[in-house]
Amino acid sequence: MAPTITAFESSPDRGRGQARDMRLRWALEEVGQPYDVRLVSFAAMKQPAHLALHPFGQIPTYEDRDLALFESGAIVLHLAERHDGLLPADASARARAIAWMFAALNTLEPPIVELGMAMLFERDRSWYAERLPMLQDRVRVRLGELSRRLGGADWLDGAFSAGDLMMVTVLRRLSASGLLDEYPDLAAYVARGEARPAFKRAFAAQLAVFRAASPH
Amino acid sequence: MAPTITAFESSPDRGRGQARDMRLRWALEEVGQPYDVRLVSFAAMKQPAHLALHPFGQIPTYEDRDLALFESGAIVLHLAERHDGLLPADASARARAIAWMFAALNTLEPPIVELGMAMLFERDRSWYAERLPMLQDRVRVRLGELSRRLGGADWLDGAFSAGDLMMVTVLRRLSASGLLDEYPDLAAYVARGEARPAFKRAFAAQLAVFRAASPH
Ligand SMILES: N[C@@H](CCC(=O)N[C@@H](CS)C(=O)NCC(=O)O)C(=O)O
Ligand SMILES: N[C@@H](CCC(=O)N[C@@H](CS)C(=O)NCC(=O)O)C(=O)O
Repeated sequence: MAPTITAFESSPDRGRGQARDMRLRWALEEVGQPYDVRLVSFAAMKQPAHLALHPFGQIPTYEDRDLALFESGAIVLHLAERHDGLLPADASARARAIAWMFAALNTLEPPIVELGMAMLFERDRSWYAERLPMLQDRVRVRLGELSRRLGGADWLDGAFSAGDLMMVTVLRRLSASGLLDEYPDLAAYVARGEARPAFKRAFAAQLAVFRAASPH
Repeated sequence: MAPTITAFESSPDRGRGQARDMRLRWALEEVGQPYDVRLVSFAAMKQPAHLALHPFGQIPTYEDRDLALFESGAIVLHLAERHDGLLPADASARARAIAWMFAALNTLEPPIVELGMAMLFERDRSWYAERLPMLQDRVRVRLGELSRRLGGADWLDGAFSAGDLMMVTVLRRLSASGLLDEYPDLAAYVARGEARPAFKRAFAAQLAVFRAASPH
């Protein structure tokens, strides 16, 4: 039986693949693991049945026989540990790839999400004009450091890994901000991720959900 | 040769063990692995030698022979995978413990850090009175969900694991906010972590650094 992931029944990103099920879909496609998707409404996410799977009432989740997991980082790591294709064989290189997963989720994503939330929810607040540049600069610092480390390479540490998968999905959340355009090498890095056949299949799958939900 | 971690030469938290080297020290103590500490100044952290170890110019780092790692989450996971004591043997329980590490770092820590930064750096801003309750409520939502999931148990998923270690260190960052007092079960959970002999040894070690740096 194929594992089952959950995704938004109706994604607020209008099919741009920014919801975090995209990370799982991409990882599952990279390793060639078929999967089922259960769509969840915003209301259902906060009900006991879903909370039993996900303590914070969110998507994505992952179910495989007796195992139920939440947190996109944990699920991608779980897949990467059990299948070839997302982590190098060498133990040190493997640990470094995992470090990039944590860097994506704990160093890059927080200021990027904060900027995104302000752009969505604080536009009409008195402080928006003053806070926006602060939030942008926090992100710019991290992008500058990331760009310097990437140093013109294709991927963060040798071959493509789960660390790149996670970093690319995190950087994609910047699209509305325009900030990625200031770092052409990072924009090219994201484009390299998006050009992978596994990414394209995952993207098409989540877009099909959005199109089915909004037929016209 | 013992592995080497880096820590602040002079910690801004005045020895309260909130800097992220505490996570590594605690994990190293739990698994009984001796370690060396190299202290780094704020200036040195942004210099090429340290940036080669840590792309974002921060502490902590971890060096063991040919392996250099950054990201506290990745380092604790690396230790947990190589030593007994921080991850359960059962494969599913192990994956769930790792999910709690990611939950601590990607779901709890971001709003907690955001609140802490506002309390430190935005007190004098025009918007502080209006934003503070918003930031507090974001944290409260997560604490409520965490409390409900803990459900009176000692640890998040059976026995103490790296997931609890990470969650306790993240929750400890709330001390200045007073929010933990609103959730007595979570305060007790943190106290249970702090009562572990390995925590106490780690805490004493980082406190000794602070005392040595400010003698009187
Ligand atoms: N740290 C979690 C975050 C999950 C998350 O934020 N999920 C979003 C969708 S991408 C969600 O469910 N939002 C609705 C909500 O929080 O109510 C992960 O990486 O899986
Ligand atoms: N995501 C990183 C965060 C590291 C971090 O924020 N370190 C702080 C100390 S706890 C630091 O070095 N701050 C100084 C700076 O960022 O310049 C991790 O978990 O290791």
